[in-house]
Amino acid sequence: MTYCVGMMLNRGLVFMSDTRTNAGLDNISTYGKMKIWEAEGDRVITLLSAGNLATTQAVVSELDERVKAHGERNPSVLESASMYQVARLVADTLRDVIARHSDTGQRASSVFNATLILGGQIAGGPPRLFLIYPEGNFIEAGPDTPFFQIGEIKYGRPILVRAYDPDLDFNEAMKLLLVSFDSTVKANLTVGAPFDYHLYTVDSLVRGDTGRVEQDDPYFQTISQGWGDALKQALDSLPAFGSMSGN
Amino acid sequence: MTYCVGMMLNRGLVFMSDTRTNAGLDNISTYGKMKIWEAEGDRVITLLSAGNLATTQAVVSELDERVKAHGERNPSVLESASMYQVARLVADTLRDVIARHSDTGQRASSVFNATLILGGQIAGGPPRLFLIYPEGNFIEAGPDTPFFQIGEIKYGRPILVRAYDPDLDFNEAMKLLLVSFDSTVKANLTVGAPFDYHLYTVDSLVRGDTGRVEQDDPYFQTISQGWGDALKQALDSLPAFGSMSGN
Repeated sequence: MTYCVGMMLNRGLVFMSDTRTNAGLDNISTYGKMKIWEAEGDRVITLLSAGNLATTQAVVSELDERVKAHGERNPSVLESASMYQVARLVADTLRDVIARHSDTGQRASSVFNATLILGGQIAGGPPRLFLIYPEGNFIEAGPDTPFFQIGEIKYGRPILVRAYDPDLDFNEAMKLLLVSFDSTVKANLTVGAPFDYHLYTVDSLVRGDTGRVEQDDPYFQTISQGWGDALKQALDSLPAFGSMSGN
Repeated sequence: MTYCVGMMLNRGLVFMSDTRTNAGLDNISTYGKMKIWEAEGDRVITLLSAGNLATTQAVVSELDERVKAHGERNPSVLESASMYQVARLVADTLRDVIARHSDTGQRASSVFNATLILGGQIAGGPPRLFLIYPEGNFIEAGPDTPFFQIGEIKYGRPILVRAYDPDLDFNEAMKLLLVSFDSTVKANLTVGAPFDYHLYTVDSLVRGDTGRVEQDDPYFQTISQGWGDALKQALDSLPAFGSMSGN
């Protein structure tokens, strides 16, 4: 499995992905699941992927090939005129890759499936964030659904639902995401550190802060250990059952 | 779906279950998923069920029939000599019910599946808590795994993992469970209030406090609304990303 989040804030886009891949519990590896394309001053595009590793790597490779092969009829992610067209291109590539592997007569196409989060900004347009399905269709984030999760999304969802605020600054968003990732890691072996992140500032049109948070990172350790105590204090702050009339 | 939790505390056993059943999003009903058998002074047994409603109702009905038909060769849950034997009886009944429906040539047996939490105490023995699988085998709670969840378990798991303590009193445990259930309800339409609960006091051998928490229960509303603020304060209490050396 995998856990990735793409989040739309007033000050920009925040992306985080884990790095664990597994083919069974006895075959665990570390692979980055975040890809960034950048043309400074023109566009910054971030792609997060969950699902079959061969599929997601093929998607990224095909998109990369197209970036390198200039002059073709079809524009690459660095040439598409809008984020919507980038999303179409990525979605079509994903659908084609899945279809190609499924055509070989394998038992089920679902094993080749993958889901993607795509976000970025192109000069002249606003930042946009998409969730791309294996069927090649996609949805866009908006004020009602300002963040997307893919992969093992359930454990880390409640804290995002409760604490997300479009006015969060990047440091607060990183804290929130690390709590969400830590809750997931603590409950599910198929998600694991290190975590990659990218903090894109709206209208900057250059790659923002990127980095990798390791399991033994002192800040992550502080969050991971402090969150348990903080949760207990949060529980303590609520009234006890039976203390209110009617119970 | 469903969400049920059985929890072992030093002062007794705590059970909570939601009441939503659905056959598609347009066919939602309310059914209790908690069954209590009691022989005052001798035993109290609680059963929580998740899965196919026809299967879980059949299991409870078969166990009830056996309780009414005295004098048979096979003892009922009110006659079995130990909680282990009760668990065997319930597990065998579950497996038989699933096998019977699967034999009719339906497409897949999984649609008839169900998972159960069984807990209780019989005079002369300690309180015991079991998780029973559709295959008819089961595992028992212990100090390392002091609570079981069935159904839609992921959203509500992180708070249980963090805040469970065997020394919790019943009011604290109810608060913890209501937070866990609220987190699940907020994220998943297939789990819904009201919530049934049973608080069994160790060595009492009588049914403990039981009741139903409705969606509009003032205490539940206080917890549901207060938890969001409490979580945000908990997040605020942790240091900001970038505030520690090395980041």
